[in-house]
Amino acid sequence: MGKTTAEKIFASHLVDEPFSGTKVLRLDVVMCHEITTPIAIADLMARGKDRVFDPTKIKAVIDHVTPSKDSKTATQAKMLRDWARRHAIQDFFDVGHNGVCHALFPEKGYIRPGYTVIMGDSHTCTHGAFGAFAAGVGTTDLEVGILKGVCAFREPKSIRINLNGTLPKGVYAKDVILYVIGQLGVNGATDRVMEFRGPVVDAMTMESRMTLCNMAIEAGGTSGICMPDMVTVEYLWPFIENEYPSKEAALAEFSIWRSDDDAVYERVLDFDVSALEPIVTFGYKPDQVKPISEIAGSPVDQVYLGSCTNGRLEDLRIAARILKGKKIAPSVRGILSPATPKIYKDAMAEGLIDIFMEAGFCVTNPTCGACLGMSNGVLAEGEVCASTTNRNFMGRMGKGGMVHLMSPATSAATAIEGAIADPRKYL
Amino acid sequence: MGKTTAEKIFASHLVDEPFSGTKVLRLDVVMCHEITTPIAIADLMARGKDRVFDPTKIKAVIDHVTPSKDSKTATQAKMLRDWARRHAIQDFFDVGHNGVCHALFPEKGYIRPGYTVIMGDSHTCTHGAFGAFAAGVGTTDLEVGILKGVCAFREPKSIRINLNGTLPKGVYAKDVILYVIGQLGVNGATDRVMEFRGPVVDAMTMESRMTLCNMAIEAGGTSGICMPDMVTVEYLWPFIENEYPSKEAALAEFSIWRSDDDAVYERVLDFDVSALEPIVTFGYKPDQVKPISEIAGSPVDQVYLGSCTNGRLEDLRIAARILKGKKIAPSVRGILSPATPKIYKDAMAEGLIDIFMEAGFCVTNPTCGACLGMSNGVLAEGEVCASTTNRNFMGRMGKGGMVHLMSPATSAATAIEGAIADPRKYL
Repeated sequence: MGKTTAEKIFASHLVDEPFSGTKVLRLDVVMCHEITTPIAIADLMARGKDRVFDPTKIKAVIDHVTPSKDSKTATQAKMLRDWARRHAIQDFFDVGHNGVCHALFPEKGYIRPGYTVIMGDSHTCTHGAFGAFAAGVGTTDLEVGILKGVCAFREPKSIRINLNGTLPKGVYAKDVILYVIGQLGVNGATDRVMEFRGPVVDAMTMESRMTLCNMAIEAGGTSGICMPDMVTVEYLWPFIENEYPSKEAALAEFSIWRSDDDAVYERVLDFDVSALEPIVTFGYKPDQVKPISEIAGSPVDQVYLGSCTNGRLEDLRIAARILKGKKIAPSVRGILSPATPKIYKDAMAEGLIDIFMEAGFCVTNPTCGACLGMSNGVLAEGEVCASTTNRNFMGRMGKGGMVHLMSPATSAATAIEGAIADPRKYL
Repeated sequence: MGKTTAEKIFASHLVDEPFSGTKVLRLDVVMCHEITTPIAIADLMARGKDRVFDPTKIKAVIDHVTPSKDSKTATQAKMLRDWARRHAIQDFFDVGHNGVCHALFPEKGYIRPGYTVIMGDSHTCTHGAFGAFAAGVGTTDLEVGILKGVCAFREPKSIRINLNGTLPKGVYAKDVILYVIGQLGVNGATDRVMEFRGPVVDAMTMESRMTLCNMAIEAGGTSGICMPDMVTVEYLWPFIENEYPSKEAALAEFSIWRSDDDAVYERVLDFDVSALEPIVTFGYKPDQVKPISEIAGSPVDQVYLGSCTNGRLEDLRIAARILKGKKIAPSVRGILSPATPKIYKDAMAEGLIDIFMEAGFCVTNPTCGACLGMSNGVLAEGEVCASTTNRNFMGRMGKGGMVHLMSPATSAATAIEGAIADPRKYL
């Protein structure tokens, strides 16, 4: 019987099976940021276990509130910094070199097909875009991962989501994943791997695949997963060109992680995206979605473009194309947060930063910031934000604030009109 | 008997003299930001006096924490925003258009020689660089200013500070003002106007004059003042070219505000700057200064370049000249905060932002931020910051943190070496 990508990764990384269905896996990468890791560090220190299993497999970044906004966040940052120095963790990214973890670490080439990845962050599922199993974990799992390089999981069943057809103009990966979450519901993939398949995924860039996988958790999914292919090889090539004689050789090795044709899924869902409209959330759960035609015209106070979901160069390009030569509505605050310094520099070199600033956007340094109401764009009571982020929970971007999730294109159109707007008329 | 600039401004703006020595002046500009003004707005509302004397004379900006970092600052921003809309205050600068008040408002051409200016901010003295009387005030004075367009002052005596000689290479306005404060002491000019004169000031740009006047308050001064001259005219010309037939005509009118040759001063101080070294503070008061030769080598954790003192294009150019092609020390976090969107855009167009980023700096959006420990670079306990800002008070940039004030050039050299460094070797 064939295996899914997740089953192959579980089988190859199995260290122990303490009881039926729970598997302890060897970890390839343990990622850390300054909000959840200092709690783990403090506990390990209190237990006299201030050690790391392998400093080369730990990747750490200060990204949630950076530069620090107050004494508390300055202390959190210092704890992570001191820990990284103490354990000679080379892949530590401090102020000036730091960006949103789920954009920065892929950009550095840290994720490969077949990897196991954990982090104390719910959107760790993003890295499944590389054909990896990547899951967000709690403090105890993170501590064990840091100390021992292993993590226990209930082996998840996979849901195969076939995305058929072709994406219409003005409709992007973000619209697709919002639509899928709308169909599945916020618990529709709980404890499951969401395997994204089909011609729509095959045609997507790695950036778009990361957007897809990033929001797997919003349907409850443990990890999103895309099949490794030549797109994956091309993205990783700068990091692996000394490891393989050719791209074809890399592809051959990566391909062993692809789900077998006769793999068994818990569910198989087929969606044709050819008639999909831009999608926007309307409530306080990510599965509360509407096509743009049913929600356009609803006013917003702020537009936020950034985050691990949609703060990549591809996203900035799409939005800049719409914003070029235009001014955003005077009633709206526009905030752009490029997800990494490289994205920022590349966007600057392409003239995109200039387009955003001329349109009236505030451009912040790379940070998670406003997405989770921690800095750089927190809403006041009663304010509404159009956002390219991943969660519209009550108060997520500020107590009493409301969030509409949408694509970068829709957010750009919305900024221009000061109300939720259809991007297709600007394309 | 001749008059000083301050005396001329007091005489021309006098509305009332309720008792000897206290003069009520008509105000030309009332400036507002989101930290101190909402308190005044709330009190005026509570008193049933939610009015403004003249919306065209009120200039408002969200600059201290922007974009908002939490619900409290989001609410403060919203209070100022709602107030500006309610009273049709056109010159209100929100996220995307906002910058540090004392850099933004001069850039917009709002300050003219002979003006009276107040703000609920201690560094309002900056605007005296235009030959204006500009003073920071408390909440009650701000409320009266907003409501009635007047403010009561004890008429300050002037201290004339003659800056003679020529500035050596690597020594700038910031070094001069730190030196002067070191000589005068932090109370040396309390309730006085500091009038900066002499060939060194005559040769300075408006940016440098603003740096001088900005720190008058650090010696206790109510306002700094520079004489309006052709440099002032050239700076303001884009804003006044329709008001005067020629620059010479503008100069003639501006010159009436210059202190008379036979004006009487409380003190006249003469300093020759020709042998001045770069100056750095060492303690927790701005008058605790040392020449660079006596403090070089002292390690720092963070370098902050920005603020109303030294976040202007001139400052960025000087620092970028030193940083070009170099990397800052791995032990240091470098933070650049251009003071306004225009400065940011101009710096980007000149390639300066690229130099800072390549060197390893984090570039934030324009904000007061870390200068007063409110956002974007707050220090943790025990950390040391080399900073181009204006206050090194205990905990100013974060509880338990230490600040060394210095020029942009010295901060750039310090970033490269990871310890306080002499910029002259890089020039």
